[in-house]
Amino acid sequence: MKLASIQFKTQRLAAVVVDGGYVPLQAQNLSEFLRDEQWRNLARQAVVSGSSNFIAANEATILNPIPTPTKVICCGLNYSDHILEMGRELPEYPTLFAKFADTLTDPNAQIFSENSESVDWEAELAVVVGSTLCQATEKDALEAIAGYTVANDISMRDWQRRTLQWFQGKAFDGTTPLGPYLVTPDELDPVAGVEVICRINGEEVQRGNTRTLVFAAASLLSYISSFTTLRAGDVVLTGTPGGVGMGMTPPRFLRSGDVLSTEIPGIGELVNTFTLRVSADA
Amino acid sequence: MKLASIQFKTQRLAAVVVDGGYVPLQAQNLSEFLRDEQWRNLARQAVVSGSSNFIAANEATILNPIPTPTKVICCGLNYSDHILEMGRELPEYPTLFAKFADTLTDPNAQIFSENSESVDWEAELAVVVGSTLCQATEKDALEAIAGYTVANDISMRDWQRRTLQWFQGKAFDGTTPLGPYLVTPDELDPVAGVEVICRINGEEVQRGNTRTLVFAAASLLSYISSFTTLRAGDVVLTGTPGGVGMGMTPPRFLRSGDVLSTEIPGIGELVNTFTLRVSADA
Repeated sequence: MKLASIQFKTQRLAAVVVDGGYVPLQAQNLSEFLRDEQWRNLARQAVVSGSSNFIAANEATILNPIPTPTKVICCGLNYSDHILEMGRELPEYPTLFAKFADTLTDPNAQIFSENSESVDWEAELAVVVGSTLCQATEKDALEAIAGYTVANDISMRDWQRRTLQWFQGKAFDGTTPLGPYLVTPDELDPVAGVEVICRINGEEVQRGNTRTLVFAAASLLSYISSFTTLRAGDVVLTGTPGGVGMGMTPPRFLRSGDVLSTEIPGIGELVNTFTLRVSADA
Repeated sequence: MKLASIQFKTQRLAAVVVDGGYVPLQAQNLSEFLRDEQWRNLARQAVVSGSSNFIAANEATILNPIPTPTKVICCGLNYSDHILEMGRELPEYPTLFAKFADTLTDPNAQIFSENSESVDWEAELAVVVGSTLCQATEKDALEAIAGYTVANDISMRDWQRRTLQWFQGKAFDGTTPLGPYLVTPDELDPVAGVEVICRINGEEVQRGNTRTLVFAAASLLSYISSFTTLRAGDVVLTGTPGGVGMGMTPPRFLRSGDVLSTEIPGIGELVNTFTLRVSADA
């Protein structure tokens, strides 16, 4: 099943994605919808009984599927090729940092930078939690996954490197597009492998496969839940494959007008136009 | 003015602290109360008109004043003596990392550790935001401060050092006590200087003065607001002075039964009993 958060006329709605459009759900977005423990049944029932409420695809705008997570936790250095590109060794533990709900934005949002000229891309598979996890085993964590979506952990490398802690370069408001759909685990298996692709103006810069993740989704959720509770609607980003701009010689960063495309076949594509607004660009 | 979040019989209430007790406010806690833009006036009015609702101090339990911040952001390495103790140089930029609302706990809560035996203390002044800050100047940030409270950024040093990012050692649920009161800026001026003291079983281990902060409260809020919006009820921890266990030779960590006291004269004291539950301690 594919789920989405959409704008239809003046309404914001959670919805099931069906052929040619959407069947609306009784919630304003998927963050709210996933907090109902019956969400899986409710989504199935909506498809069976809800065709009279069908919204055609061209009547709706797709929004950030998960606008109000209580936690957004990211794993760095999780693809073996990206780890080697950054000059590091394969890790024993996942490298984790946090973002906020405010960091996220819509799948087709424009991305602005006012305070950094070193804006880099990081195409990622994102995992959305479907029920509470506390000290969970990997098996329990796997069963609690609501689904998968696409993210780009756009990073201000200058701010990321101002101090030892990456957080400030990773938490600029409205810089992590998420979406377009939440795909349930019965339709997508990242352990078997899905491609994670990033393009700039159509030129492919990243292509990795989630089967090469050092820490798979269930492993990450289990590990995180050993120190902090994960709840329905929380989001975990699984890291980026090789091909980021910082790893290039010379380093390459986003320029005004660049169109950043982030795709995971089986989920969908984010398309974000970038605008640099720092004074040097004015 | 001193404000608190209290438990009175079955009710949770925000309250103004007055001689011998509390005058309740129309909110369940200060997180909720601060979201009302009129909170300053409402608190003053409650004191004038609310004496008939007086709750005696011994009838109430003091809780975490700010249970549901949308952001908890911490500054590391901010006291010159602690920076030198850790073998580092004075920073050009604040070192920032995030916690969650779940990381916070009550001023007199018991603190448990199930997964770490390297549990260290970090007494800190915490700043609570009183209104929205976005790209704010230091002057605007100063005016937006709701008040100050006490925190102990209890840190799992083994987890903190598993990777380059400190976050996982800083975000264990229920390990950062906060409180007991929120003191408004007219009663407390950390730039002029307040003492930040930590004791273990009555033995003083930390004593610093906020006038030695590299980045003062308004400077931190202004800096943070240059990349992410701060809102009423958000919490910023300003860093810890010298005297943490990790800096001792040999390193010293909390043991089961230790009573950790964290005090800022003019605000109050946190008193937390620590219990180690890892198997080696069983």
